[in-house]
Amino acid sequence: MPIELDLECRITKMNRTMQGENLSDFILLFSCPDRPGLVSTISRFIYERNGNILDLDEHVDPVGKTFFIRVAWNVPSGAVPLAEIDAAFRPVASGFGASWILRHSGSRTRIAVFVSRYDHCLQEILWRNSIGEFPVEIALIVSNHADLSVLAARYGIPYHVFAVTAQNKQDMEEKQLELLAAEKIDTIVLARYMQILSSDFVDRYPSRIINIHHSFLPAFVGGNPYRQAYERGVKIIGATSHYVTEDLDEGPIIEQDIIRVSHKDSLDDLIRKGRDLERLVLAKALRLHANHRILVNGKKTVVFD
Amino acid sequence: MPIELDLECRITKMNRTMQGENLSDFILLFSCPDRPGLVSTISRFIYERNGNILDLDEHVDPVGKTFFIRVAWNVPSGAVPLAEIDAAFRPVASGFGASWILRHSGSRTRIAVFVSRYDHCLQEILWRNSIGEFPVEIALIVSNHADLSVLAARYGIPYHVFAVTAQNKQDMEEKQLELLAAEKIDTIVLARYMQILSSDFVDRYPSRIINIHHSFLPAFVGGNPYRQAYERGVKIIGATSHYVTEDLDEGPIIEQDIIRVSHKDSLDDLIRKGRDLERLVLAKALRLHANHRILVNGKKTVVFD
Amino acid sequence: MPIELDLECRITKMNRTMQGENLSDFILLFSCPDRPGLVSTISRFIYERNGNILDLDEHVDPVGKTFFIRVAWNVPSGAVPLAEIDAAFRPVASGFGASWILRHSGSRTRIAVFVSRYDHCLQEILWRNSIGEFPVEIALIVSNHADLSVLAARYGIPYHVFAVTAQNKQDMEEKQLELLAAEKIDTIVLARYMQILSSDFVDRYPSRIINIHHSFLPAFVGGNPYRQAYERGVKIIGATSHYVTEDLDEGPIIEQDIIRVSHKDSLDDLIRKGRDLERLVLAKALRLHANHRILVNGKKTVVFD
Amino acid sequence: MPIELDLECRITKMNRTMQGENLSDFILLFSCPDRPGLVSTISRFIYERNGNILDLDEHVDPVGKTFFIRVAWNVPSGAVPLAEIDAAFRPVASGFGASWILRHSGSRTRIAVFVSRYDHCLQEILWRNSIGEFPVEIALIVSNHADLSVLAARYGIPYHVFAVTAQNKQDMEEKQLELLAAEKIDTIVLARYMQILSSDFVDRYPSRIINIHHSFLPAFVGGNPYRQAYERGVKIIGATSHYVTEDLDEGPIIEQDIIRVSHKDSLDDLIRKGRDLERLVLAKALRLHANHRILVNGKKTVVFD
Repeated sequence: MPIELDLECRITKMNRTMQGENLSDFILLFSCPDRPGLVSTISRFIYERNGNILDLDEHVDPVGKTFFIRVAWNVPSGAVPLAEIDAAFRPVASGFGASWILRHSGSRTRIAVFVSRYDHCLQEILWRNSIGEFPVEIALIVSNHADLSVLAARYGIPYHVFAVTAQNKQDMEEKQLELLAAEKIDTIVLARYMQILSSDFVDRYPSRIINIHHSFLPAFVGGNPYRQAYERGVKIIGATSHYVTEDLDEGPIIEQDIIRVSHKDSLDDLIRKGRDLERLVLAKALRLHANHRILVNGKKTVVFD
Repeated sequence: MPIELDLECRITKMNRTMQGENLSDFILLFSCPDRPGLVSTISRFIYERNGNILDLDEHVDPVGKTFFIRVAWNVPSGAVPLAEIDAAFRPVASGFGASWILRHSGSRTRIAVFVSRYDHCLQEILWRNSIGEFPVEIALIVSNHADLSVLAARYGIPYHVFAVTAQNKQDMEEKQLELLAAEKIDTIVLARYMQILSSDFVDRYPSRIINIHHSFLPAFVGGNPYRQAYERGVKIIGATSHYVTEDLDEGPIIEQDIIRVSHKDSLDDLIRKGRDLERLVLAKALRLHANHRILVNGKKTVVFD
Repeated sequence: MPIELDLECRITKMNRTMQGENLSDFILLFSCPDRPGLVSTISRFIYERNGNILDLDEHVDPVGKTFFIRVAWNVPSGAVPLAEIDAAFRPVASGFGASWILRHSGSRTRIAVFVSRYDHCLQEILWRNSIGEFPVEIALIVSNHADLSVLAARYGIPYHVFAVTAQNKQDMEEKQLELLAAEKIDTIVLARYMQILSSDFVDRYPSRIINIHHSFLPAFVGGNPYRQAYERGVKIIGATSHYVTEDLDEGPIIEQDIIRVSHKDSLDDLIRKGRDLERLVLAKALRLHANHRILVNGKKTVVFD
Repeated sequence: MPIELDLECRITKMNRTMQGENLSDFILLFSCPDRPGLVSTISRFIYERNGNILDLDEHVDPVGKTFFIRVAWNVPSGAVPLAEIDAAFRPVASGFGASWILRHSGSRTRIAVFVSRYDHCLQEILWRNSIGEFPVEIALIVSNHADLSVLAARYGIPYHVFAVTAQNKQDMEEKQLELLAAEKIDTIVLARYMQILSSDFVDRYPSRIINIHHSFLPAFVGGNPYRQAYERGVKIIGATSHYVTEDLDEGPIIEQDIIRVSHKDSLDDLIRKGRDLERLVLAKALRLHANHRILVNGKKTVVFD
């Protein structure tokens, strides 16, 4: 009996492998003040190293006169060390005053997930990662509560409890930062973590802390957004994933989504519907980030989806 | 050549006629403090007058303990005067301390549309009305500018210009109110009218002035919401139709909708995309209102869609 | 430090309890040929037994002249045996030639989930059930493969493997039916079960087998819908949950949803995006079914959402 | 009184002017078999002519190994004749075996709109064009009925009636083609035109006839899609805009959108809701086409939105 399952499964697995470890696939994420010749220079750089461009997204912000590009290419002739490309590109980028990163497309971002008691966002990230949706390595989970350690254990992820209080917050954050440094964490995901990080903490991971806020920002900033939405009588609720900055709920927005509600929906229904939004929006933001598809443009993002 | 057009056209026209003038179709919109026996009493009232319920929506607000119902029924045996039903129902409703209205389902609400210079919302309402989408009679258009008089003339609607200034505002509003009273206007539609109505004016038409705000309220209240949205870098923009109350942008929300935007969208693109939202959301709100599908519940609405 | 979490958590837990076991809350799902007096009779029946209606949805199909109603009410004075209400209502319903069911609103539907190798739909149902989103009891899981037994074990659900082949299918189905009968299963959920059930099997659970089809039906019936969609170049893909009938992919549709795709999306991307649709749409259909919100109207459904 | 209207209006008008006639802005739409060096060659070509890239979208179809690109650039130093750029680029493109077009970004596509009796799509296109949303010149309207001549006259567009019958179809099409040729029509928009064009006609305008089909293709091909949808009991309806090919309803899809329906919606409600979809989807497709954002890839499209 020929079963579709097998076919589609095989394709998925193939792609996961491809997504994985190809040493000759590269991604460049690059921004600088706009000027003529940028695409020409970058694409020539790739061509001269036998690269074939697979995917290229470009954007010029007409207000800030800033140039943004993401290029993915492969070198069919075989493995090329990242360090070699990186060293060759450095003077080019330097001449343009650019911010940039260069990665193997198969490299996995090491992340830490911060949680409190809600399980839905963590559950979503762990499950998606288990079927290969993200090019990330979930190195560890940090929480101010022990509740979700069982879930972490299911997926074999180390779970660290820091019982943060108003009194010990500074001390706890220092210990967390030590742990993150020791584990070479690149990106932090706040998966409904109910503590506010200090500015000092945030400054250590610029554009590398992803939060999910359970409202359609900038509507309903601060606490209890579902209750605020219920009391205002909105007909649509939302969720927003953004990079964390010093200003609470003000960081560059990565992704938002919404769902309809009506007078029939109780506050509890809003919370239930919102859970689905939160986990999907956060998962999408993480996927975009881990695939190096996001550039920060001042208080906004350029997302090459 | 059998053409689908003809068939679907015919159906549409039939429905318009049905929607029109049936003197034996009634709609009751009713709310009161919740208590047992309300549905039983109302449905028995209808049944005893040979009515057959076509459509019934009910809601109990579990917080405010308030009962809301909309019932549409017909009396197959033939025409029944509205006044007769109304008089019979009055003591029933009175016993429950209810707010209510009773209408022939085919009756047309007399409306006035207020506009400034943007044509898109007015255009939408006039066109939809011309093909029979709303059970309304557009009695007149009020504007603080002459620009849209040509559009009004196309559809044969009287157009009144009131050149409102900060100085003459009170006087102008009094003249507007006289006109509205003389023309027996039931409901006012603010179709991107760029003037703020005074509290005195608003008080004369409680839950009968419909506004369209070009943002996803409560995000971006006040002026220039598209610019605010552009600068904040949101990934979704919205529009909100609400009843006007004394508090600007705070009235009960009737309908909202959204559209995705990205870093590629300029402010001008947001305005363009928003135009589509504004006219669709306002048109939907007007249709719901004119079909007697909205009840106000404090600062919120119950919409029986 | 006042934390929002606690508040919203508490509310959610309260609701779960309320949703649970209230012996004086009832739900009636009822349909019959339309005639005057139906709402009046049913609401009077409830009122005379001290019931207070919490929620009422009604629909009359104008083509089939059929009446549909769902009423939820409570009896504040205390516990009333379901059997007593049921016995009293039986002659009433009988007089109208009605199909109907009467349930305690807190009663839990016993379900069996059928799966093959994909975990996403099963994962979703088990997790949602674990946080109290469905009023169901997942009594057992049936599969033609052993793969997902680990997942079942995590949630403590018995997992039964039936290695169905073209040859032993009839025999296997008989054994499955025995198991389902022994376990008093009310509803079967096909959570990407890759076997086609025989007509005999389907006939045993009319409108009580819920399937998820990974396309926007009636587009892309049959096998490999994502591949079909990819090759056709559609800009939107969908998923459809429906009751299973003898005609494959033709059963009454319960719920559908969609997501945008573009030329950038590979077949693998379609499968990934579709996974999210499938699990959300199936979960929603199951929630509606378990809350007794669906009535079948010929080849269509009436969904009182 | 500072009024937002004025500000946003001014911006919009500025953009319209910019969109208009800038002789130093160019758009290249280009596709060829994929190979290394394509982006490098094209971007170098632009750079060497003092061009500054404003917008670049690129796609490689990994199945067909085909390269697609759209580049928009300006030459700040002043006006450059299109013919000069075109002549210089010709040998470059030829070497790659490319299909391509080169346009001034401000050039207006000359279109003909074909209609029957429904006004909603024509109304939408004429109105949007009147406020500058499309870079098109609507040269004429063709119809098999006189009904919409009044609407055409409002916007000052010539209206030509061809009373097509089964008998005279070939003759009528020849006359239509003569008219289109005489008027130098580039693109034809079928705005709910209820006649099927012959293969001969279609062959004359490859990928330059845009149709709107009132269903979510490939669901409900052929006639009466709303009736089909109503009878199937779908929970979502759609509309599809596509290029016309010889195979009816099989052409490359440009854009699709959907709206929710429920058991409450009559066939007439589906038609009403569908009207909104049809006009928005067709308008979006036309805007994409007129802005040179669509490339055909076999039976599919690449849309650089």
